Amino acid sequence: MNEFELIARLTQDLPAHPSVKLGPGDDCALIDVGWPDRWLLFKTDAVVEGVHFTGETEPEKVGRKALGRCLSDIAAMAGTPTVALVTLGLPRDHDSHIIERIYNGIKSMALQHQVAIAGGETTTNPGGILISISLIGFASKTQCPLRSGGQPGDALFVTGELGGSLQGKHLDFIPRLEEARWLVSNFAVHAMMDISDGLAGDLRHILKASKTGAELLSEAIPISVEARRAATRPGTTKTPLNAALSDGEDFELLFSVSSHDAVRLLDAWKARFPGLRLSCIGKLTSEPGLRMRSRKSVEALAFDGYTHFA
Amino acid sequence: MNEFELIARLTQDLPAHPSVKLGPGDDCALIDVGWPDRWLLFKTDAVVEGVHFTGETEPEKVGRKALGRCLSDIAAMAGTPTVALVTLGLPRDHDSHIIERIYNGIKSMALQHQVAIAGGETTTNPGGILISISLIGFASKTQCPLRSGGQPGDALFVTGELGGSLQGKHLDFIPRLEEARWLVSNFAVHAMMDISDGLAGDLRHILKASKTGAELLSEAIPISVEARRAATRPGTTKTPLNAALSDGEDFELLFSVSSHDAVRLLDAWKARFPGLRLSCIGKLTSEPGLRMRSRKSVEALAFDGYTHFA
Repeated sequence: MNEFELIARLTQDLPAHPSVKLGPGDDCALIDVGWPDRWLLFKTDAVVEGVHFTGETEPEKVGRKALGRCLSDIAAMAGTPTVALVTLGLPRDHDSHIIERIYNGIKSMALQHQVAIAGGETTTNPGGILISISLIGFASKTQCPLRSGGQPGDALFVTGELGGSLQGKHLDFIPRLEEARWLVSNFAVHAMMDISDGLAGDLRHILKASKTGAELLSEAIPISVEARRAATRPGTTKTPLNAALSDGEDFELLFSVSSHDAVRLLDAWKARFPGLRLSCIGKLTSEPGLRMRSRKSVEALAFDGYTHFA
Repeated sequence: MNEFELIARLTQDLPAHPSVKLGPGDDCALIDVGWPDRWLLFKTDAVVEGVHFTGETEPEKVGRKALGRCLSDIAAMAGTPTVALVTLGLPRDHDSHIIERIYNGIKSMALQHQVAIAGGETTTNPGGILISISLIGFASKTQCPLRSGGQPGDALFVTGELGGSLQGKHLDFIPRLEEARWLVSNFAVHAMMDISDGLAGDLRHILKASKTGAELLSEAIPISVEARRAATRPGTTKTPLNAALSDGEDFELLFSVSSHDAVRLLDAWKARFPGLRLSCIGKLTSEPGLRMRSRKSVEALAFDGYTHFA
């Protein structure tokens, strides 16, 4: 049982509040606050020293990442973030300037995306720095793609390049808020999520929620320079493709549209976002499971990104 | 500079989102989501192993406390909680049943107050258990008492009994949601907050926000049995009154109403909540500062609850 399944099981017998339209299991919770055309988005996400960054990471980058991860979840619903609260846990012996440096990082990310910080709490966390961000925002009721909206035959897309994020991008990524809103305004996006745990693992959530399978095209997966570079290091067994499929913290968008829209989307994207790659990486299928098509063969692909049956 | 002042300073040059009606500095942030008569309340609060509970505390009680603290902040705005998100940080070697036990505690508190849990995240926190609760709810725009609403001459009230919470109450308190809503429905409550850091220290926030002073009546402070008992222990120098003024985690309501309403309030309270003590503990004054009146004298009272100039 994974984390989402466990939490969904643990919370299933809670009193269902009528305002909760979507609870655990997607990128954000959707709340109906009586707006005729919008959902309230509600999300929380934490970064922890020793897990998501090290004691040597610049505090400004830690702050940026903490808010950025939450913003990436808002992007996954094609939403607009509005107000954040910051919970900051610090070890007892923390440097007196660290609060200000972390906040400066949070603020730089907040300014870029017009997010207000409406409060904060600072507490002791004996084991190291922990930042939990709580965020609200809104999304269009008619243009809010869920993980469950994928349809067999849909073309699958991913923004940017994947893999090797730990080389630096995980501290310096750009939440794809603008791109996501442009997408839903111009195309019928069926399913969408952000990639935080690796393409193959995260795609599983769309397949499960949409009750479809998928076939990826090995040559179409956009592999980052960092993933290619890491594969050349002595002793590395992970291929660049494995890295692109399984490395976490890409914070790119993974989404599906009708295959009829695929060519028009690629053209329009190139005109609108010339600096950001968009790749059609395969399709959703009525046949369940995940497969990888290469020139030679079609092989089952595990959700950890490896073709165990190759 | 205290935590609130630091965070207020760090966030003062953020883009001000027009929906944020009240940011850092009160019990909850107030957000205008377009409801004609209600604010959206937004609050986050964390409990940490070794700070707010020990490794020996029953996980169910830790879960109850985590949500209860946030609910107490909603009560301070006379609000109604609706939806919570749970961020659970666990050490790497955690007991496999602890997630379920903590959630059972959160759920028991959620069920009592009709709060939905719309999602959760579980992450590694190497130093110990940390639970951060994020909560939304609503409050009446016309009946939402802020810390800043106190007026000179107001009678000051406190619910329950104070001090000695660490003997057990801090894990088993009842957020005063029902009492707070009854108060604002029946009386013009000028200022209100919950007591989490000790009566004297928390009263400072009302005095600062309301630009008043206060005079407390030493014989009127409701001292808990636990605070009295603790004072009898060998080696203890803290008097029961000091404990009631300075011990934290009472989670009772502290509020002010016009002195004209004081007697009517005490009578109506006794009829409505016969099991919960309500005490008039003094008054707000135009003279700044905090003073304690006893039979013999009036003495300046420090915000840590001690009369240093006695």
